[in-house]
Amino acid sequence: MNLKSSSKLSSLPLKNIKIGDNFWTKYTKLVKDVIIPYQWDSLNDNIEGAEPSHCLNNFKIAAGEKEGEFGGAVFQDTDVAKWLEAVAFTLATTRDKALENLADSVIDLIGRAQDKNGYINTYFTIKEPNLRWTNLTEGHELYTAGHLIEAAVAYYDATAKDKFLNIMIRFADLICDTFGEKENQIHGYPGHQEIELALVKLYEVTKNKKYLDSAKYFLDERGKLPNYFLEEEKTEKFKRIFPEFKNYTPLYSQSHLPVREQTTAEGHAVRAVYMYCAMADISYEYEDKELLKACKTLWNNIVNKRMYITGGIGSSGLLERFTTDYDLPNDINYSETCASIGLALFGLRMTKITKEASYMDIVERALYNTVLAGIAMDGKGFFYVNPLEVWPESCIERTSKEHVKPVRQKWFGVACCPPNIARTLASLGQYIYLADNNSLYVNLFISNETIVEFEDKQVNLVMETNFPNDNNINIHLTSELEKEIILALRIPFYAENYTVFLNDQTYKFEIDKGYAIIKGKFKNDKIEIKFDSTAKFIYANPLVRADSGKVAITKGPLVYCLEEADNKDNLSAIFVDTLVSPVEKYNEELFGGTTVVTLQGKRISNKNWNDDNLYGTQKPIYEDTILKAVPYCYWGNRKHGEMAVWLKTLI
Amino acid sequence: MNLKSSSKLSSLPLKNIKIGDNFWTKYTKLVKDVIIPYQWDSLNDNIEGAEPSHCLNNFKIAAGEKEGEFGGAVFQDTDVAKWLEAVAFTLATTRDKALENLADSVIDLIGRAQDKNGYINTYFTIKEPNLRWTNLTEGHELYTAGHLIEAAVAYYDATAKDKFLNIMIRFADLICDTFGEKENQIHGYPGHQEIELALVKLYEVTKNKKYLDSAKYFLDERGKLPNYFLEEEKTEKFKRIFPEFKNYTPLYSQSHLPVREQTTAEGHAVRAVYMYCAMADISYEYEDKELLKACKTLWNNIVNKRMYITGGIGSSGLLERFTTDYDLPNDINYSETCASIGLALFGLRMTKITKEASYMDIVERALYNTVLAGIAMDGKGFFYVNPLEVWPESCIERTSKEHVKPVRQKWFGVACCPPNIARTLASLGQYIYLADNNSLYVNLFISNETIVEFEDKQVNLVMETNFPNDNNINIHLTSELEKEIILALRIPFYAENYTVFLNDQTYKFEIDKGYAIIKGKFKNDKIEIKFDSTAKFIYANPLVRADSGKVAITKGPLVYCLEEADNKDNLSAIFVDTLVSPVEKYNEELFGGTTVVTLQGKRISNKNWNDDNLYGTQKPIYEDTILKAVPYCYWGNRKHGEMAVWLKTLI
Repeated sequence: MNLKSSSKLSSLPLKNIKIGDNFWTKYTKLVKDVIIPYQWDSLNDNIEGAEPSHCLNNFKIAAGEKEGEFGGAVFQDTDVAKWLEAVAFTLATTRDKALENLADSVIDLIGRAQDKNGYINTYFTIKEPNLRWTNLTEGHELYTAGHLIEAAVAYYDATAKDKFLNIMIRFADLICDTFGEKENQIHGYPGHQEIELALVKLYEVTKNKKYLDSAKYFLDERGKLPNYFLEEEKTEKFKRIFPEFKNYTPLYSQSHLPVREQTTAEGHAVRAVYMYCAMADISYEYEDKELLKACKTLWNNIVNKRMYITGGIGSSGLLERFTTDYDLPNDINYSETCASIGLALFGLRMTKITKEASYMDIVERALYNTVLAGIAMDGKGFFYVNPLEVWPESCIERTSKEHVKPVRQKWFGVACCPPNIARTLASLGQYIYLADNNSLYVNLFISNETIVEFEDKQVNLVMETNFPNDNNINIHLTSELEKEIILALRIPFYAENYTVFLNDQTYKFEIDKGYAIIKGKFKNDKIEIKFDSTAKFIYANPLVRADSGKVAITKGPLVYCLEEADNKDNLSAIFVDTLVSPVEKYNEELFGGTTVVTLQGKRISNKNWNDDNLYGTQKPIYEDTILKAVPYCYWGNRKHGEMAVWLKTLI
Repeated sequence: MNLKSSSKLSSLPLKNIKIGDNFWTKYTKLVKDVIIPYQWDSLNDNIEGAEPSHCLNNFKIAAGEKEGEFGGAVFQDTDVAKWLEAVAFTLATTRDKALENLADSVIDLIGRAQDKNGYINTYFTIKEPNLRWTNLTEGHELYTAGHLIEAAVAYYDATAKDKFLNIMIRFADLICDTFGEKENQIHGYPGHQEIELALVKLYEVTKNKKYLDSAKYFLDERGKLPNYFLEEEKTEKFKRIFPEFKNYTPLYSQSHLPVREQTTAEGHAVRAVYMYCAMADISYEYEDKELLKACKTLWNNIVNKRMYITGGIGSSGLLERFTTDYDLPNDINYSETCASIGLALFGLRMTKITKEASYMDIVERALYNTVLAGIAMDGKGFFYVNPLEVWPESCIERTSKEHVKPVRQKWFGVACCPPNIARTLASLGQYIYLADNNSLYVNLFISNETIVEFEDKQVNLVMETNFPNDNNINIHLTSELEKEIILALRIPFYAENYTVFLNDQTYKFEIDKGYAIIKGKFKNDKIEIKFDSTAKFIYANPLVRADSGKVAITKGPLVYCLEEADNKDNLSAIFVDTLVSPVEKYNEELFGGTTVVTLQGKRISNKNWNDDNLYGTQKPIYEDTILKAVPYCYWGNRKHGEMAVWLKTLI
C-alpha cells in the first residue's frame, strides 16, 4: 500500500502518475517506443556499426549456458540493470505483456547466473572467480549490485512480481554478511558508490532494517584512516583492472575524509552525487542531523561554486571530476549526463527531508537542460559530455577536447548515460510530487493525471499546462476528503508575479520554504497558478573566470544557446547588446514547438582581415547583428555546428 | 677556415661573436654561471629534491664500469648531448680549462660506452641489447644519435679537438650503413626527427656527402606507403615502450604523407619543426626547389594559422601537438619551449635560403618571448609548457590543465627543455648575423663584437644598443676591405620611421626582401639605425575564437602580459580601453631594467555579488582601473599568481 501515513515527505508511486505533457511527452514516449527496443538490441549485440555490449551474452556464459569470454567493462552488467529499471518504470504506467515477458526472461537469466551463495557479477564469475571483493577500488561489484537491486525494487513496484526482488535479496543478504564491523567481515566500501542508495530502496520495500544498517555502514566506514583503498592495493590478491587508476588519490573516490567531514564536492562527479544521495537517504531514515548538515554543505558547495548554469557538474574534461571553486570552463568540461541525473536525485532527496522548494530549482535546472540535452529528439543519439560551448573543428582526436562530441553518439562502449537517461525519463513522475500524511507538494509543472492516496481518502488530480512555453498551470482536484489537506505549490526562483486562483478567485496564500500553501478539502476544485517568466539575461559571479563579461539567456528553467544553424559560424565573434531586452516568440514548427529568443548585438567582421593574417594592429570592425537563441536542451538536433551558452556582451 | 666564399648565406662561427648586451647578457651569462654547473649536478644525480637523471650512470653501466639498471627515459642520453653542446657553444667564446676537462671526461666515457660497431645508446645497450633498431617509432635511437652528433660538431668547432667528432663519425657511419635503399638496409626513418639535422651538420664539417645523402634519404622515405611505423608494429621483435603510443596515427610523427606533399603543420610540434629544419637544410644543400616550396607552405601554415603571438606552437595541451587552424586556446595549450626553439631554427634556415627578413621576425618573436619565458631569471627554474593565461588555482592534478605549471620547475623527468634553452642561449650568436661572400646580414639587435671573414679581408664590427628598451642601434665597422661589401640591415615588421645614418648622415637605402641595403668598403665607419616602435594594441584574426574581442600589447618583439603581482587577482574581470593609448615607462629596478606599459580600463566589481551566489540577473558593475603590463618573458619571476596576455576590451 502507498498510503501516506507519515509526516515525512515521499514520492508517489509511479503507477499513479500518467504524464501527457506538450514539453515532456516527446521525450518520455521515446523510452518505450525507441530507447527500450534499441537498448534491447544493444544488450543482444544486434546493432550494426556499434560496439557489441556483450551484456546478455555475459549472463549466459556466467549461467553456464554458453561458452565464451567475458566482454565489455567490469561494470557491464549495469546496462542490463538500467534497462530492466527503465522497463519497470515504463510498465508501472503502461502495461505491455510482450515487454514484461522479455523482462521476465532476462530476470530468469540473471537468476540462473547467480551463484549459490547469492553472488551476481558476470565479470568476476567468468573472468576472476577467485578475486571476488579483492578490488573494491575498481571492481564495481557493489556498484553493479546496487543497480540490479534498484531495478528489482522498481520491477516489484511496477508488477508486484517478486522473483527478481528475491534474487536480489539473496545477493543483498550476502553483501550484508560480507561487509561490516565484525571481525570476519570486510571493513570496506564501494569504489563507486551506488549500493548505498539501493539498500535503502530495498529497506523501503522489505522494511528489513539490516539493509539500512549496511548502507549506513558503507557511509560511516568511508574515509576512515588508514584508507581502505590504499591498503587494498598492497594486498596479495589485488589485481589492477584500470592501469590509469594507479596513483589516483582518495579524493577521486570521496574517501579522503569521513563523509560527515566533507565540505567540498570532490573527485568523480557521479560517484560524489550518488554518495550524497545515500547520505541524504540515511539522514532521512535515521533523522541524522549531522549527516544532513554535511549534505547541505556539500549541496551548497556544488550549486554556489561548482555547477554550470545548465545544472552540469564535473568541470574537468579528464576523469569526469570536480575541480575547484568557480572553475567552470565552457568548452573543455565534462558535465556528464549521469552526474546531472545524480544531482537531480540528490536535490529531490533534500526537498523530501527539508520541505524546501529551492532544491527543486536545481533539480528542474538539471532535468530541463543537461539531462534532456543528453538525448537526441529521435531517441537515437546521446551525449555523455555536455559542454556549454562547442567549436566542432577543434574537438579533434588526442587533444584536450577529444571528449567533446559535437554530434550525439549512437552508443558508447561505456554506456552509462543512455540507459540512465531512459530510467530518468521513465521515472519523471517521482520529481513532480512529494506527499506526506496531509500535504501534497507540487514541484514541477508537467501535465499529468495522478492519484494521491491519503489515509482517509483518495485525491484525483489533473494538471494541465504548456509550461515552460507559457506559465499557466491548471490543477483540477476531485476527492471525497473529510479532512483538510495542504497543497504546497512550488514558487520557482524565476517566477515573477506568482498568483494562485482557487476556483477563479485570487487566493491569498502564505509561503512556507518556497511553497505557496493552499488548504482545503478539495471536493471538486480548480486551482490555477500564473506567473511571469520572461527571457532574461543572466550573469555569473565575477569569480567565474570563464564567464566574465558574458551573459546567458534563460526563460524559466530553460537555458538558451546560440547555434550555428541560426547564427552562422564563429559564435565567438558575437557580442550581445544587453541594453536591448530579449524578445520571445513561440515557433510551433521548431523542435515540435518552442519559444525562440531574439537578441541584438554586434559581430566582428572579417572584412579587414584575410585568412593569411594572424595578428595585426587593425581594430576590429563591429557590425550590427540579430541573434536567435534556442533552448540548450535542443542543441545539436539540426545540422552539425557551433554552439554557445555564454555570450560576450558589449561593454 | 670560415671564409665566406659562397653566394649562399651561412652563420658566422660562434667563436667570432662576443655578446655583451643589456637585455640578453642577464640570460646568456646564466648558461656558464648557473645552468651548466646545475645540469652537471643533474647529470650526476646530485640535485636534492629533484628526480635523478641517471644520465652519466647509464653511460658508466653501458661502458661496463658499473653494475646497475638503466634509469630514465629511452632518450635520456640526449641530456648529456645537450649539455655537451651547451658547453661547446660556451667554450667557443670563453675558454675555460676546467670546464673543457669536464667535457673531455664525459666524451671519454661516451667513447667507452660505444659498441665496437659504432653504436651508442645506453637504453638499448643496457636494457634491450637485442632490440636495436626494432622500434624506430618509440626507440629514439636516431634522435639520440642526432643530438650527440650535433654536440660533437659543436665541440669540434669550439675546441678543434676531434675525439668526440670521430666517435660520432663511427656511429654516423653505422647509421648510414644500416638505413637506406639497398636490400640489406632498413627502409625506415626516425620516430622523432633530429638525426637529419645532425647529419647535415656532420657533412658541413667533414664535407663527406654520404651524411647529406642519408639525411635526404630519411626525409624522402618518410610518409611512403605502406607506413613504416604501422608495419614495424606488426613485426615479431617490436616491443612497445610507451603504452600510450598504441593507436597513434602517422599524423603524430609527420609520416602521414611524403614530406614534400605536406601542407599543414601536424602532430608533435617538436618533431614537426625539427623535420622542417632538415627539409630546409636539404633544400639549401641540394638546391631542391620542391622541398623549399613545401617548407614555405608549412611555414606559412604555422605562422599564419597555428602560432601564438608569443611564437609558441603546439596548441594542444595533450601530446604537445598541433591541432587545427586558428585553434589557439590560451590557458590549456602546450606551446613547449623546445618547439619554439625548433621554430627559431627553422626560421633561421629559411632566411639563409631565401634572404628574406620576414622569417627573422618570427625567429625574434620566439626567442624574445617563449624561449626566454622558459627560464627563470635566476637560471634555476624552467617552463616546459608556455600558456598565455594562467589561473594557478585551476591548474590542478588530473584535469585538462595539469600540464600547466604556474611556477617554473626545478627540473623535469623528461628534461628536454632546460638544456635546449641552455644551448640556444649559448648559441645566440648564430641568429644575429648571416653572411655570404660579399654581404653581411644583420638580423637581431643585440650588442656584440664580431669578426667577419670575407675572402679578401676581415671586418671588425661592434654593435651597441639598448634594444628593445630603445630603438637606436649603433654599428661601428673597421676593416681593410679592398672591395665593396653589402650590409643588409633587417627592417623588423614593427619598425616605424626606420632610418639609417652613415657617419651621422642620413643614408638613402634601397630595400631588398625586408633588408635595408648599405654598400661600402667600411674602413672605419659608423652606422646608426633608428626607428620607432611604441607599445601597441594587437588584435588576432577574428577566426581565432580564443582571442575574439581581446587585445594583446606588444612593443617591438616583446609581447606584454598582466600579472597578478601588479594588477591583483581575477584578471578575467579586466577590460582594456583601447581608445586610450598604452603609456611606456622605463623602470630600471624591475627585472634588471625594463619598459613597463600602463593601460586604462575597467574591472568588474565584486560589490554586487557575494561568494555564495553563482548566477544572477544583476548587471555587472564596472569600475575604472589602471593596468600595468610587463614583458611576457619575465612573468612568474615574482610572486605566484595569475597572468594573461590576451585581454578583453571595452566594446
